[in-house]
Amino acid sequence: MPGDCVFCKIADGEVSAEIVYEDDDILAFKDISPVAPVHLLIIPRKHIPTLLDLNESDAELVGRLHLVAADLARAFNIDHSGFRVVFNCGPDAGQEVYHLHLHLLGGKPMTALIAEES
Amino acid sequence: MPGDCVFCKIADGEVSAEIVYEDDDILAFKDISPVAPVHLLIIPRKHIPTLLDLNESDAELVGRLHLVAADLARAFNIDHSGFRVVFNCGPDAGQEVYHLHLHLLGGKPMTALIAEES
Repeated sequence: MPGDCVFCKIADGEVSAEIVYEDDDILAFKDISPVAPVHLLIIPRKHIPTLLDLNESDAELVGRLHLVAADLARAFNIDHSGFRVVFNCGPDAGQEVYHLHLHLLGGKPMTALIAEES
Repeated sequence: MPGDCVFCKIADGEVSAEIVYEDDDILAFKDISPVAPVHLLIIPRKHIPTLLDLNESDAELVGRLHLVAADLARAFNIDHSGFRVVFNCGPDAGQEVYHLHLHLLGGKPMTALIAEES
């Protein structure tokens, strides 16, 4: 693990976070700067910087992040109202931490797929 | 396959689309109402309505959609500038077609994670 990766540190318990799910491979916690009433981050414990760094052997893990997202949507009661999951990759998408993280967003309407940049 | 699913019809060749990738399990094509210079949809051929309908056995398939997304980002030259992938689920997210589809978006800055609703 890279020593300066804050999400690796959260996975290792060195940095605190409001954890809402964990298993041997995956961790989920509340985003510290939420942009929706429900805003969770679901990450693999394994340090994978971006989607561009995925190998074929990571496919099941990446899929399981989405199964966890669906379970968390049910747990946070946004399964019926609806929710969005997002991976940002690189500068145009505003990726801030280079450790793969799936945003789970819900609890408000967000029907526009992307925001207009000012 | 549900007879009225437009993405099943695209996968079966009954409805035309500008296809940019296909294999035995996955198809990718250009969104007919793009919101970014690159806006592709990556779908499983299998009819899965939403993320809430995923089974454990679908995990690898869902992960592979992301490997295809990364390859398409390279092919469309948005790997260095950055890109976003999005699954919408249900009304609050504005899901329009109830056949799982991963939006791949790039070619412009879109750093805000969600748009403010008017």
